[in-house]
Parts: sequence; structure tokens; C-alpha cells
Amino acid sequence: MNEALLTAMLVTDGKTLLIGAGVFAVLALVFAVFASRRILRWPTGTEEMGRIADAIRRGAMAFLRTEYTILLIFVILLSVALTIFVDGGSWAGFQQVLSSGGLSDLIFGTGGKGGTAAAFLAGALCSVLAGFIGMRTATNANVRTTEAAKTSIGDALRVAFSSGVVMGLSVVGLGLIGIVALTLWRGNAGGDPAIDFNPNLIFGFSLGASSIALFARVGGGIFTKAADVGADMVGKVEAGIPEDDPRNPAVIADNVGDNVGDVAGMGADLFESYVGSIIAAMALGYAATGLGAERTNTLIVLPIALAGVGILASIVGTFFVRAKDEKGLSAALFKGLFVASLLFAGLAAGLFMLLGAHEIQPAQATYTGEWGIYFAVIMGLVLGVLIGKATEHYTSERKRHAQEIAAQSETGAATNIIHGLAVGMQSTAVPLILIAATTFGAFWFAGLYGIGVAAVGMLSTLGISLAVDAYGPVADNAGGIAQMSGCPPEVRERTDALDALGNTTAAIGKGFAIGSAALTALALFYAYANKTGILDKGINILDATTFSGFLIGGMLPFMFAAMTMKAVGRAANRMIEEVRRQFKSITGLMEGQAEPDYARCVAIATRGSLKEMILPGLMAVIAPILIGVTLGVDAVGGMLGGALLCSVLMAIFMANAGGAWDNAKKWIETGQLGGKGSDAHKAAVIGDTVGDPFKDTSGPSLNILIKLMTIVSLIFAATFKGFPPPG
Amino acid sequence: MNEALLTAMLVTDGKTLLIGAGVFAVLALVFAVFASRRILRWPTGTEEMGRIADAIRRGAMAFLRTEYTILLIFVILLSVALTIFVDGGSWAGFQQVLSSGGLSDLIFGTGGKGGTAAAFLAGALCSVLAGFIGMRTATNANVRTTEAAKTSIGDALRVAFSSGVVMGLSVVGLGLIGIVALTLWRGNAGGDPAIDFNPNLIFGFSLGASSIALFARVGGGIFTKAADVGADMVGKVEAGIPEDDPRNPAVIADNVGDNVGDVAGMGADLFESYVGSIIAAMALGYAATGLGAERTNTLIVLPIALAGVGILASIVGTFFVRAKDEKGLSAALFKGLFVASLLFAGLAAGLFMLLGAHEIQPAQATYTGEWGIYFAVIMGLVLGVLIGKATEHYTSERKRHAQEIAAQSETGAATNIIHGLAVGMQSTAVPLILIAATTFGAFWFAGLYGIGVAAVGMLSTLGISLAVDAYGPVADNAGGIAQMSGCPPEVRERTDALDALGNTTAAIGKGFAIGSAALTALALFYAYANKTGILDKGINILDATTFSGFLIGGMLPFMFAAMTMKAVGRAANRMIEEVRRQFKSITGLMEGQAEPDYARCVAIATRGSLKEMILPGLMAVIAPILIGVTLGVDAVGGMLGGALLCSVLMAIFMANAGGAWDNAKKWIETGQLGGKGSDAHKAAVIGDTVGDPFKDTSGPSLNILIKLMTIVSLIFAATFKGFPPPG
Repeated sequence: MNEALLTAMLVTDGKTLLIGAGVFAVLALVFAVFASRRILRWPTGTEEMGRIADAIRRGAMAFLRTEYTILLIFVILLSVALTIFVDGGSWAGFQQVLSSGGLSDLIFGTGGKGGTAAAFLAGALCSVLAGFIGMRTATNANVRTTEAAKTSIGDALRVAFSSGVVMGLSVVGLGLIGIVALTLWRGNAGGDPAIDFNPNLIFGFSLGASSIALFARVGGGIFTKAADVGADMVGKVEAGIPEDDPRNPAVIADNVGDNVGDVAGMGADLFESYVGSIIAAMALGYAATGLGAERTNTLIVLPIALAGVGILASIVGTFFVRAKDEKGLSAALFKGLFVASLLFAGLAAGLFMLLGAHEIQPAQATYTGEWGIYFAVIMGLVLGVLIGKATEHYTSERKRHAQEIAAQSETGAATNIIHGLAVGMQSTAVPLILIAATTFGAFWFAGLYGIGVAAVGMLSTLGISLAVDAYGPVADNAGGIAQMSGCPPEVRERTDALDALGNTTAAIGKGFAIGSAALTALALFYAYANKTGILDKGINILDATTFSGFLIGGMLPFMFAAMTMKAVGRAANRMIEEVRRQFKSITGLMEGQAEPDYARCVAIATRGSLKEMILPGLMAVIAPILIGVTLGVDAVGGMLGGALLCSVLMAIFMANAGGAWDNAKKWIETGQLGGKGSDAHKAAVIGDTVGDPFKDTSGPSLNILIKLMTIVSLIFAATFKGFPPPG
Repeated sequence: MNEALLTAMLVTDGKTLLIGAGVFAVLALVFAVFASRRILRWPTGTEEMGRIADAIRRGAMAFLRTEYTILLIFVILLSVALTIFVDGGSWAGFQQVLSSGGLSDLIFGTGGKGGTAAAFLAGALCSVLAGFIGMRTATNANVRTTEAAKTSIGDALRVAFSSGVVMGLSVVGLGLIGIVALTLWRGNAGGDPAIDFNPNLIFGFSLGASSIALFARVGGGIFTKAADVGADMVGKVEAGIPEDDPRNPAVIADNVGDNVGDVAGMGADLFESYVGSIIAAMALGYAATGLGAERTNTLIVLPIALAGVGILASIVGTFFVRAKDEKGLSAALFKGLFVASLLFAGLAAGLFMLLGAHEIQPAQATYTGEWGIYFAVIMGLVLGVLIGKATEHYTSERKRHAQEIAAQSETGAATNIIHGLAVGMQSTAVPLILIAATTFGAFWFAGLYGIGVAAVGMLSTLGISLAVDAYGPVADNAGGIAQMSGCPPEVRERTDALDALGNTTAAIGKGFAIGSAALTALALFYAYANKTGILDKGINILDATTFSGFLIGGMLPFMFAAMTMKAVGRAANRMIEEVRRQFKSITGLMEGQAEPDYARCVAIATRGSLKEMILPGLMAVIAPILIGVTLGVDAVGGMLGGALLCSVLMAIFMANAGGAWDNAKKWIETGQLGGKGSDAHKAAVIGDTVGDPFKDTSGPSLNILIKLMTIVSLIFAATFKGFPPPG
């Protein structure tokens, strides 16, 4: 492309491009509204069904309200800290601003400085909104999916998947709108170049998203497992009543758990990943040197533009998800994903031509031809698919590993557990090698920036991949409602088929979340190194101070996993006591003549899980600041490196071990090795229970932990020992 | 000290000092012989007892013979590779040496070059010898301990502890003699300075020790757990006969397992740690610059001299281990350790004065006063004790964590497992912070060299700490013999008391092994960086190539743990089948009228475990070379960093989780929570079984893995991409 034209286009049209991406983001929200309306057009079935669905919805919303109230305190405290120590620079600096009357400039980030706290609030708000919309929709869709399943599996898929679409498109829409708005808000202050970039704003936005996500993931994860264990241990094991039996006091809490854990928790999680990947790539574009202002600007807006075309591709992809019968289910979902990925690759190529981005070669790249950055984007896209495949290989009940765990159940629970742990550990190899190869390749093609855009490429089609992922809990809930309301057995069979597929897609989604977390954290890590001036000298683990931080950083994910696992145990114990109490004190409960106090179980799980979420959440925020203030910027660098490595490893280990145990049990339940009720099945149930906090609480939270720690370090870097950077 | 005198002393007396240390090493062996004779003076009891002891001894020796035969092939192959690619430099270089007729110079390291292969063989031989002596002694001592227990607990302790002393003193004696001999052998070639140091020799020696240790630890660890599980699952659970019942076909194999795993395996493990710590410190002394030749020489001989006085302190300490009754047991052992540590601190101070070492300030040290190096040594000594205390805190049945696991057993196996895993993960925090603080402190006091001597300080009293550790399996065996031969119950009670204490000391010993592994691996890591010329620019994990190695390195310990855990499962399954077969096919076995085929069980466990040890062992040797040849010296640096971090974390996690599960079960067996046979006990037994491969196979092997990988990298560095170092 003609150089003069390019320059002219960028200077004049940077803003236009941002607005264009913003339009796609708004389009996502419009489609989400349409999908939401489509759901509401379906009938809610019998009165009994409506009553159950209502109880679930009220429980879920009560959880969200309580959670957000607690988080409000945290958000306010952190906003104050950000205003004083980050926007103000220090207590003294803040005092000075106060006395000079510049507080509003500081808060609103006028003139390219400050504004972190405001952006943080915006990020937190968008995250809360995304979780709220997803949950509201899922709790509307569950009962309608049950009703639709009375007609056909295709209809049931349509409703459940629509709910996923609302979630997926809301997350990407809100995320991208937030980033575009912040970039435009205080951009253009200097007039030229087009985007007067203030990284504080997007970092603040990302911090808001990450901190809400961690609490939501941990809180939701503890809730869902506490309720699940409580319902199973007392209901199924002690009282001997079937799953989803309305006589079980914890049954509503269990269904609420699916929503608060798998819908709201995962929504906040991927909202955070999505935002994190875009802003990390923007920051690396901003840090790229020696390319000239226009090209740097292109690198800053490119991640936003890629996200925009990714949204378009995702919307188109959703139209390809249609199935008539059970056999077509899996194909339908993968077809949607495949179309979206292919379309994204094509649209992205067009975008590169339009922006002239295919001509840019970042300084550290080894590759000297054109299209290097594009190749890095595509590597990220492919990495997501491959990690998903690897996850499926290690966890699917149709593959060797889960079946081997099932076979080991025949000699008892101990061999089942040992083998499951071994499979989880072993399953780290392929993803780690893939991530290493992608990092290496993306860097080779496009330097540090390549690693940033690889993460963006991976998450570009999040709109549809999250939709595919988030329909699972709706199907799960639909099955529960079918059971509790006494629907005909074929309804339950259809929702079970939807749910089973949901387990596979959820495994793939988890692999996706882990891969993107690794790349995004790495990109943020580079942004940290750049800000603190240690990018050139590097993070040298042979340095004793750095090494000390490195050791502590590696230990934190183990500590975090331990804390969340124990928290699940404590919350579950409270649930167990309450369920036992109700069985004992409510007369006529077992005979079905009296109704249990569902709400009380929900309240106890809510209180228990939210209480337990605070400590691990605070640890993630406080640890980097503590190390930074005492040991300095290098030690924090080491800490982030150690934490990145061990978080990724532990997350994969825990998620895959949990998934494999779950599916080993399911494999036996299909009638293998003696089927349900056999000794092998009993052993497999123990393995599955151990896997529950692994795969639904600790494992997924670790993905957020590492990003949150990195973004906290990035934002608070100025308060660390050894800052400002030399020179 | 007068500078001229110092110089004169060093130049003339470097050799004398080495010989002095060698004398202490020989003294250790002499004391070992005395202790060994003391054991043989005790009677072996009844004919039945002798027959059982004989079967155990024959089984253990058969295992060792088979193991060493297999390892011989590995040792020969690696020797050839070392001769060609390390001593010869490359295939072409080796051809050149061949054609010039210099092969014998190359092999024997004449003129300060070559000799790696010969030193490797020496190291392997010493390791084999240490394992052999320890095993021979332990299998002589077990039956005599049973017999002595008929008289009193004090006598039983005397015999069992003597066996530990033989082991401890043989390990340190052989290790130090080897290092001294190699340093003297090709030293002094240049005449001046006194020690013309050829690092290849000691590195080769360390490689020999490490590679045998890894195979011995893995093979022994698999054997012991396969036999244990086989005996328990079929004998105790299926046939319903008590522990150590002579009708159980696997009972001899189980007792053999205690010897091959806990005696030979651990002996080889700590032999390797001991040698590794000394040679790593020597290498760092050799690499120290800007001090002048004499002072560099002091730094090279100092670790040897420290080891020498440590041996003296250990020998003295053993005389303080005396107990009359059960209550005095624990105090007796700790008194011995305490006296030895205190004496070492005093003797080392004297040594520093004598050598003038207290005046040396290595270049990177921040501390500028005298005695900096000494403080680093003492920090290491203290670290060992503190990690041991932390291990005890997390695993002892008298402390909170094991009791909490026991309490969680009341709600079933799943909650027991979840809580145990959480305790294991949580238990990484204190040791990692301690190691970080020691690294930081030792570096602050004495630079890189400080980290090397801290490891030496930690292991200086190994002679006695290993004795305290290694008496446990003898007591365990003694109890088994008492049971099988139908001794009066008070005999078994006394051996049980000895054994219970052994569990605590073994836990402390494991903490010790982990701490020393971390420091030694780090010191070797520095030696690698120095050799490859990346010490100054550092190992920068922000570099994409280094980062790729870093990710792969972190994954290897997970992979290794998975492989060894699965190996235990497979070997145990073979045992289970054999034991079942014998119960079915040998008529009159259950009635005690026919004898089972003990030898066949031993043979099956031997074959199974040795087959399974090969793959994980080879992975440790091949992985660094593969990464080095393809990705280069920086990637190997990253790999070693990642592997170090994750090995230490996984080793602590696995060892402590296993220890805590074991003791939670023991706690219930003392009558708590319903005692033996209760539901809580059944759940705790499952936890204990999961913990078996954790604490006795995978966990301890990880300590060796990281050192072996580092020493392989160090030795093969010259064949890596990016070598020789620039400048």
C-alpha cells in the first residue's frame, strides 16, 4: 500500500476504525437481544416447571446480589488505592493534587494521565453486567429448554444454544465496547497521532475485569461444588434418593450452582481473558519502537479491529448451529465453530490489507517477509483448536485415558485416584509443548507483539466458542427441571444427550481458557517488563533476588489451589449439616408430603462460598504488591514467571484430571465394567468427587489468578522498589 | 592471618589438606566397619527367624544384582558417549584423538583434559558400593534387632541404629574419598597453584552418582510399593489375613521392598546429594574471579575440608544416641543430631581460621565484613533443620494437619483425598519461602559461592542424619520378622515403637533431601551458566527461546511423576495377579499347611520394577541433551530453571501429602474416630494407598531428577547449540 495513503488513512481514520470496531461490538449486543427474545418466545411448560425454574432463578439472582454487594466494598477500597497510589503516584503526590485542586482531572484522566480508577470501575461494571446478563438468560432458558425437549432435540438445542449465544455475544460486545470507549474517551488529547494512547485506562479496565472474574470464579466454583457435594452425599448416598429428586433440600441449590459456577463464573472468566488479550496486545503495540508513529498506531488499533471482525465471524457462525437429532448435535456445534474460524481468518487477511499491517515487521522478529503478524494471529487461532483437541484426548470417555481410569476403578478407589492424578499430570505435556511452540513461532514471526496478537487470534471467535460452551449448564438445568417436575422419560433423555455433549465442549472450552491465559499472561508480563524498564536486561532467574521471587511465585498457585480446595470442603460440610438437619426435622419430607426449605440451602451455600472466596482473592491482589514493595521490580518479574509456569501447569493438571475422572465414571455408567452400582462405579464416584473441586473450582481459577497477579503488578509497578526504570 | 603465610600454606599444603579430608573419610569407613561388626556380634535368634531373614536377604540381593546388571548396560553406553562427545569433544575430535594415538590420555584425563568417562565410572561404582553395603548391613541387622528387642528397647535401638550408622558413614566416606582421590589424581599437573583443578573429573563423578541414584530410587520405589500394594490388597483385603502373615506370598517381597526402596534407594539418593553439593560448591569456587589464585584454591578445597570436619562431627554425634526406654528414643536421636550440628559449627569456624577463608569476600557478595562464607554455611545448616521441622508440622499425626485429614475421613475417602492433596500443596509454602530466604541470604553474604557452601553446610552432618533416617526400615523389617516367626507380643510392640519414631525421622530426612536438592541443583545450575558463558547475560525468561525451554522444563517433573505413578500401578497389578494365583493354586496355603512361593513374588516385583525404571530414567538423561542440541544453551537454561522450580514444588507436595495421609491413618489406628475397622479408617487406608507412590516413589525421585538433568546439561554443554560461549 502506498505509504502516504497509509499515513493519511491512519491519522485521519484511526478514530473511524475504532468506531467501526465499536459498531461490530454493538451489533453483538443487538444480536444478543434478538437471541434473548427468541428464548422468551418459547413457552415455560407446566406450572410445576415454572415454579422450579423460578426457585432456581431467585436463588441464582440472590447469590449474584450478595456477591456483588461484597465485591462493592472491595471495588471501592481498590479504587481509592488506585486513585492515591497509581493515579496520584504516591500519598504525597496525591496530597499535592488535592491541594492544587486537580482531583477531577486525576480521576477522569484528563491530558493522558490518571483515570486508572475510573477505568477499573468501568471494567468491573462491564464484568458484572456480563455475568448478570448471562445468568438472567440461562435461568430463563433452562425451563424453556425442558419444554422444547418435549417436542424434539433440535428445538431443545435451539433454545439452549440461544442462551449460550446471548452469553457469548454479550461478553465480547461489552468487552470490546469498553475498550473502544476508553481508547476514544481520553484519546486524541494531543490531536496527532490519531490515538493518543493512555495505557493506564485499558490496564485499569482489565484490572476491573480480572478482579471481578477471580472472585466470581472462586465464589461460584465453591458454591457449585458445595451444593453438589451436599446434595449427593446426603441425598444420594445417605437417604438413597435419586439425583435431582425434589425431596432433596439441596436440589435447587445444586441447580443454582450450575448457573453461578458454570454460567456467571465462566462468563466473568472469559470476559477477563478476552479483555486481557486485547489490551495486552495493544500495550505491546504501544511499546514497539522504531516503526514510526503511524505504524505504532496501527499496532495499537489492530487488536481492536481483529476483535471486531472476530465478532462478525462469530455472529455468522451461530447461524450454522442447527441439528435435527442426537447424532447431528456434535457436528452442528463444530460446524459453527469451524465456519467462524475460517471466516475470521479471511476477514483478518482483508483487514491486514486495508491497514497495511501485513507490511509491518516488528523489531524483534526473525522473519523478514510480509504477513508475519498475520501468521502469529493464525498460530494463536490454531493453538486454541489443538489444545482443545488434546484436552478431549485426555478426558473424553471415548478415549483411552478415561477408560483406563475406569478400568483402574475395578481394584478400588485408591488405584482410580492414583491413575487419575497421573493422567492429569501427564496431560500437561502436549499443551505445554504447544504453548512453547506457539510462543516460539509467534515471536519468530512478529516479535513480542506476535505473542500478544496470537492471544487475540485465539480468542477472536470467543463469541461463538463461549456460546458452544455456555449452553451446557442450561441443558444440565433443563434435565434437572425435567426430573423434578416429573416430565416423561424421553424429555430427560434428550436433555441428557445435550448435556453429555456439553461436557465435551466444556472440556474444550477449559483448554481454550488455559491456552489463552498462558499467552495473555505472557503478553501482560512483557508489558510489565517494558513498563519497569527490565525488558532489555531481562528477567534473569540466576539473580538471587529474582530467584527468590521466582520460588515464591511458583509456590503461590499451589497455595491458591490448596486454599480453594479446602474452602470447598468447608462450604460442603456446612451444606451437608443443613441437608441432614432438614431430613431429620421436617416431618413427611421423605414421603413427599412436605416440601424442604430449598431457600435455606441456597442461602447457606451463598454465605459459605462468598465467605470463602475472600481470602484467596485477596492473596492474588496483595502478594505481588507485597513482593514489589519489599523486594522490588526484579523479584516481581521472577515471581510472575514462576507463577505463570506453575499456574498453567496446575490448571491443566487439575482441569484434565477432574474431567477424566468425571468421564471415567460416565463411561462405567454406560454399562461398562458392571455399570451403575458396581464396585468399580463406587470407586469411580469417589474419583469424580475428588475431581469436582479440581475441575470446577481450583483449576479454572488458576487461569485468572496469573492474569490478575500480572495486571496488579503492571498497575502498581510505580510503587515498587527499583522503580522508575533507569534512563 | 599473615598474607604471606597464607599463600605459602595454600600452595604447599593444598594437597595436605585434601589428604587430611581423605583421612577423615577413611575414618568414616573404619567406624562403619566397627559398627558393622558390632551388629554381627548379636545373635540371630531362632531358626525360623534366621530362615525368614535369609529369605529377605536373598531377595534383596537378587534385586540389587539384577538392577546393577541392567544399569551396567546403561553405564557402558553412557561411558562411550562421554568418551566420544565430551572427552573427545565431538565425533570428529574423537576420531582425531584415535588416529593420533592419544586415547589413553583422553580416557585417563592426563594433562587436565578428558577423564570424564573414567570419573563417571568411579562415581557409579561408589554409588553401587554404598547401596550394596547399606543393604547388606540392613539385612544382617533386621533379624538381630528382633532378637535384641526380646531383651529391651535400648538394645534393639542399638542394633538398628548401628545399621543406620554403617549406611550413613559409608555414604559420606565413599563420597568424600572419591572426590579427594579425583582431585588429587590428575591435580597438580601444572605444579602451581597447588591444585590444578579439572572440573570434568568431579562432574563426571557426580554424573555417575546421580544416574545410579535416579534408577535406584525409581526402581526401588516401584518395587517397594508394588510389593506393599500386592501384599495388602490380596492378603489383608481379599484373604483377610493380618499384616506380615507368613501365609501371604508377597510378605517376603514386602520386607525386601523396605530394603531396596528405603535403604538402597535412599542411600544412593543421599550419596548423590552429598557428592553433588560438594562438587557444585567446588565448581563455583573455581569460577570465582578476581580473588587471586591462592584464594580461588581455598574456595575449591573448602567444601572438601568442610565435608571432612562434618564427618568428624557426625562420628562424635553417634556416640550420643543411647536410650533406655521408649520415652527416651526420640530425645536420643535428636541429641545425636544436635551434638553433631553444634560440633560442626565449631569445627568449621576453626577451619575457616586455619585457611584464612573467613577473610575472603567473593565478588558478588553484598556483605563486606569477614566471615561471610561461614555465615552462608551456617544458613544452610539451619535451613535443613527448619525444613525438617516444617515437614514434621505438616505430616506428624500429633499435629493439626494430619488430624484434620483423619477427621475428613469420616465423610469418606473423597474428602480424605481432597484434604490430603490440599495439605500437600499448602505445605510447599514454608519450605519455598525458607529456600528463597536462604538463597537470598547466602548470596548476600557470599555471592554465588555462598549458595554452593550453604548446600554443603546442610549436608555436612549427613553421616549422622542419614543414620537416624536409615535405621527406620531396619526396625520395620524387625517387626515383620517378629510377626512372621511368632515372637511374643512385647517384641513386636518394641519394634513398633522404634518404627513409629522412624516415620517421623524419615519425614524429616525427606525434607532434608528436598532442601539440599534445591540448593545443590541451583549451585549446579550456576556452574552450567558459567560454563556456557550465559552467567553474565543471565537466563532471561522473557527471551522466547529460553521461555520455550522454561515451559518444557516445568512440564517434565509432572510427566516424570505421572510415569512413575503409573509404573507403580502396573507393577502392583502384576503382583496382585501372582498373589491371587498362589492363593488359588497352592492347596493348604490358607490353613498354614503349605508354604507360598515367596521367591516368585520377589522375582516378579524385581522384573516389574526394573522394567519400569528404564523409561523415566532415560527421559531425565535424554531431555536436556535433546533440548540443548536443537534449541541451544539458552533454552536449556530456561528448561533447568523451570524444572528446578517444579521439581522442588512437586517433590514437597507429593512427599508431604503422602506422609500426612500415612499418619492420618496411623492417628485413627491409635483409637481415634472409631479406630481400626471403622468407616473413617477404611477411607484413611485409601488415602494412605494413594500416598504410597507419592511419598516413596515419585516424590523422592524428583529430587534426583532435577540434579541429574542439571549435571547432564553441565557435562554435555559443549555439544549444545550456541556453545562455545562468546569471548
